[in-house]
Order: sequence, then C-alpha cells, then structure tokens
Amino acid sequence: MVTPSVVDGRAIDLRAVQRQVDAVLEEFLAGKARDAAGHGHPPEVVQTVRDFLAAGGKRIRALLCVVGWHAAGGHGDATSAVRVAASLELFVAFALIHDDIMDDSASRRGRPAVHRVMRARLGGDERAERLGAGGALLVGNLALMWAHELLHTAQLETERQRLVHRLNDAMLEEVMYGQYLDVMGTGRGADDVEAALRIVRYKTATATVERPLQLGAAVAGADEAVMDAFTRLGLPLGEAFQLRDDLLDVFGSPDSSSAPGLSDLREGKRTVLLALGLQNADPLRRGRLGHLVGRADLEEREAAEVRDILQRSGARQQTERMITSRYEHVLRVLDAAGFPPAADRALRGLAVKATQYTS
Amino acid sequence: MVTPSVVDGRAIDLRAVQRQVDAVLEEFLAGKARDAAGHGHPPEVVQTVRDFLAAGGKRIRALLCVVGWHAAGGHGDATSAVRVAASLELFVAFALIHDDIMDDSASRRGRPAVHRVMRARLGGDERAERLGAGGALLVGNLALMWAHELLHTAQLETERQRLVHRLNDAMLEEVMYGQYLDVMGTGRGADDVEAALRIVRYKTATATVERPLQLGAAVAGADEAVMDAFTRLGLPLGEAFQLRDDLLDVFGSPDSSSAPGLSDLREGKRTVLLALGLQNADPLRRGRLGHLVGRADLEEREAAEVRDILQRSGARQQTERMITSRYEHVLRVLDAAGFPPAADRALRGLAVKATQYTS
Repeated sequence: MVTPSVVDGRAIDLRAVQRQVDAVLEEFLAGKARDAAGHGHPPEVVQTVRDFLAAGGKRIRALLCVVGWHAAGGHGDATSAVRVAASLELFVAFALIHDDIMDDSASRRGRPAVHRVMRARLGGDERAERLGAGGALLVGNLALMWAHELLHTAQLETERQRLVHRLNDAMLEEVMYGQYLDVMGTGRGADDVEAALRIVRYKTATATVERPLQLGAAVAGADEAVMDAFTRLGLPLGEAFQLRDDLLDVFGSPDSSSAPGLSDLREGKRTVLLALGLQNADPLRRGRLGHLVGRADLEEREAAEVRDILQRSGARQQTERMITSRYEHVLRVLDAAGFPPAADRALRGLAVKATQYTS
Repeated sequence: MVTPSVVDGRAIDLRAVQRQVDAVLEEFLAGKARDAAGHGHPPEVVQTVRDFLAAGGKRIRALLCVVGWHAAGGHGDATSAVRVAASLELFVAFALIHDDIMDDSASRRGRPAVHRVMRARLGGDERAERLGAGGALLVGNLALMWAHELLHTAQLETERQRLVHRLNDAMLEEVMYGQYLDVMGTGRGADDVEAALRIVRYKTATATVERPLQLGAAVAGADEAVMDAFTRLGLPLGEAFQLRDDLLDVFGSPDSSSAPGLSDLREGKRTVLLALGLQNADPLRRGRLGHLVGRADLEEREAAEVRDILQRSGARQQTERMITSRYEHVLRVLDAAGFPPAADRALRGLAVKATQYTS
C-alpha cells in the first residue's frame, strides 16, 4: 500500500500526516493483536500500547520526521518516511512508560500511568506494586522492540537503512543517558542550571527535534548540509520546547487552555525553571523552595507559594527569555537554510507551536 | 578487521569462538566507554555492562549462533556471524538485568544484581530502592539498544539483514511475552505444568537455542530446510536446558561442581519441577510446598524439606525423564538433518553440555 505525500508545493497538510502516522500505528498494532491471539498471548499488552497512543500526544516527533523528509527533497511515495515517523511514536511510548515507572508518576496523558493500571489490576498491595512495575516495564520494552520492527520493515535502500539505524541508535542512547542523569541525580544540585540544561539536551532536545528531522532526511537520502542545518536548529528548538513545557506544567497558559499543575513540583523535577529560582531567590525563599518542591503531598496553597517565588525571583521571566532567544536562533537558521517553501513554512509553524503558549 | 572462521572441517573450536565473541564485545564496549567520556556521560553505565559480561555466562547463545552459521554452510570470514553472536549476549544481559529488577533478585552470576549495586550506591533507603531500580532499568535498556546496534552494523547483504532482523525481532517479542506471563502470573496456578512449560518455551527455550541457531543460519543465507531443522531441535533442547537449570538450582550437581541453592525456592519461581511436585504430592506435603516455596527468608533446613518432597513425590525423577526424552528427540533430528560434520559434532556436544549435569 502506498502512502501518498500530502504536500502540494506550498504547504504540508500536517493533519493529514498525523492521520497517516496513526493509520500505520493502528494497522501495525492490529497485526500484533492478531499475532498475540494466535499464540495465546495475553491481549492486554497490545491493548495497553494502543490505549497509550490513543490517549493523546501531539505526534510532534512524527510530524518533524515527515517534514524533515520533505525538507531534504522527499516527495511522492511517503510510505517509508511515515513508517519511520510512526516508529518514533512507539519509541516515545516506551520512554514515557519507563519514565513513569522510575518517577512513580500517577498519571500520563490524563489517564493513570501504565504501571498504576497494572498495579491496580493485581490488587494494589506491596507485591502488586513490584509486579505492576514489572508488567509496565515489559509493555514498555515491547513498545521499543516494535519501534525497531517498524524501522526494520521500512523498505529502505541499504545505505539509507544504515543511516536511519545510525541516527536512531544514537538517539536512543542519548535519551537513555539523559534519563540516567535525571534519575541518578534526583535531589542533588537542583540549583545547577547547566546540569538541568544538560538533562534537557540529552533526554528531550535531540530526540524531540534534531533526530526526528534527521531521520526523515535520511529516508530522503539527505546530504550533509541538510543534516547540519537540522542539528543547528534542532537543539535550540528542542530546548525551547522543553522549557515551554516546564513553564506550562507549573504556571499553565494565560488563555487557560492548560491549567497550572502540581506534577513537576510534587515530583521535584530538576527543571531549568527551578534551578533559576533556587539560584536567584534570597536565602529565605530558597529555603522554602527546597522545603516544598519534591513533596509528594504538596498542596495547591503551597504550590501557589512556589509559583510566587519563581515569579518574583525572575526565574519565570528568565526562562521566557531563554525560549525567545532560542526561537529567534531557529528563525535565523531557517533563513539561511533555504529549505523548499512547504517544508520551511511547516518548520516555522512547528517552531511557533512548540515555543509559544499553545498546548 | 576480518574474524577468521575457526572450523577445520571436522571440528569447531568453541573456545576460540567464545574468545572471538568476547573480543567483539570488548572492542564495542571500549568504543562506548570512549564515546561516554567524550560526551561527559557517567562512565559507570558502560562499566556496569562490562562487569556483567565479565562475571560469567556460558555464551551458549553466541556459540549456537556461530554453530548455526557453520551448519548452514557458513565458512571463511566469520565477522558478521560473530557480531550477531555478540549481539545475543548483550540481549541476554538486558533480559537478565530487567529480570532481576522484576524479581528483586539479590544476586546474579555470583555478584550483587545490578539494581542492588545501584541501590547501595545511592544510600540504600526507600528512595534509593526506587532510583536504583530506575538506574538498572536504564542500563538494561542500553544493553538492548547496543545489541541492536551490533546487528545494525553487522555489514550484511540486504536480504540477509532483513531476515536477521525478522528473526531477532520475533525472539525479542517472544521473550517479553514469556517474562510477562511469568511476572503477571507469579503465585497463581503454580501447580500448572502446562503453564510452567509455556513460560519456559517463550521466556527461555526459543531464545536460548532455536533463534540463535537460526540467526547464525540467516547470516549464511540458510534455506528453509535448515531453519525448520533448527526449529525442530531448538524447542526441545531449549526446554531441556531450562529443566536442567531448574534441577541444578534446587539440587546442585552430583559431582558438587554446582551446590544446591535457595534462589529459585525463595523467589517462588514457577518451575516445571515445582508444578510436578505440587501435582504429585499428597495434600499434607502439597500444603508444605505452598507454605515454604516463595518465602524470601527460607532457611536451608526448610529448603531440605522442600527437596525431600520434590524427590519423594517423583517430581525430580519426572523432570529428569523429560530432559532425557527431549535430548533423544534432539539426537533424532540431528541424525535426519545431515549437517556438515563439524557443525553436527558441535551441536551434539552442546546438547550434552546443556542437558547433562555439567554447569
């Protein structure tokens, strides 16, 4: 079955791309469900992955992958590019399911986290806690393996296949090191802005923008210049994306499309925002931040105090400025790169979407 | 660098194969250590994987992979076959590290399990327990990703590469489903021999013998007949291997090269041996088995009682007979297959090694 490209020369229909990606995922997982039934495997494993994907996610990595393919000259039959894009979404599912186990997060995409679902299914006692985490770990592993399987069956010509694997393997390794830094460093040096940026860089930035763009470009057989441009814009855009995400989690959005939340604060996530707050605040307020952030039972009243400190210390405004300077850097890279008009327009649109107050 | 084949027409030098596999792993991980240093990543991740591999393991899957390659006509430059074989050992490291997290096993290969090492490094309190498990989970993930990377860089011709991926992806999925059955079913239906055999089949049997042989054969460009023969001998040999392992864990070996242990009994592992014991024993002794097996603080005196029940109920002897019948089946398959003499001899040797009282 051929997946037609949905670019008409001037614009890429990103909604259509998202539908194509979702269709590939749905068809692939329907096949996995049939296989499982045929082998007598429990059906809930595939179902859990399907539910996870259905619960949301902006498919930003998948969209960037297909845009990267167009930017590098890809046109016509988009089957391979969309398949690689779909693989990225399974990789994200894997990374988030494991992340939630490690943080013991209660929810994800507005639903209970996978390990919490498994735990509840097993009864909810201490044994269920360990086994539920084990079940979720395995569901995550399968999502990763299926991400690989989508790549392995993308029907690419040998040299492009090798490049896709090289980029994908590098991305996976970067994300794991980023998560490792995050997990093993929790609670230590939370006022270290550089350390926080480092985690953003490895855990999020390259895997969210740079590598997806490059993977798409690799499918099109991109040259070094395109790959370099994607590196130059991918890192700042990925960082800006994460910084915006951190602000949205704590402060919500002005138009109320996203409400201020408690999750990062309760978890004690080592964000750049928090590091700036700790650095800037006076000793008394720094002490309050240290006391409040990371408390699993943090109340809304206390969260309001934290927000107030982050606001008054200038940490919020400083984070906004970091986003703006990164966004402007991205625009300069795009000006110089001279991508085909449809891809250029899509990249500018995604850059706005990722860095402004729209969720 | 070319890795020469170490077969001389009549015999395969399995020790030499093992050295080649270990050399590939060492070179690959030395490269990963250099990369980590270059990026400022913590060195202990690579070191943990190296230590895990250095601590032992019989490299049985790697050996079977290279033997499968010879059996399917592989000769001359063994570089690709040895690389695929090395990938299997990283996959095993991943599976065991995750397995130990899920079972909260104290030790592996005579050393503390990886998550226990990480936990101790973090202080050993409740928080350290969660984070240590998280760190180990990520080390395991990296081992899996590196297993993939070894495959991706095995320099195979396109069709063989695709077949290798198809077989490897199928193996990974089987093992995950086997682990899932094991984890989510712990404590339920421990007297179900069929359920226990099903876990053996998915979690161990195919990944230990059938798939490694087929992966090697795929590197050599094997035809269907060879693949089928490996399926016919792989399942019974893999099952026999696991049944022997279960007996060794509980009873040790008669020559005392392996001591009777407590780990499977304490963990409450749902082995075929235990299922047979529960089925065969009279109600009183069945009750004792249910009471004792799975107690984390099981003492040697109590383990002796369990062994006595497994012995008297005939479960031990029945397990021995299951091994023997599977071993004989393997010999019949080998008689019919007519593999090249060196490969045939190696397979018979490995079959003895895997099923007899030698550890």
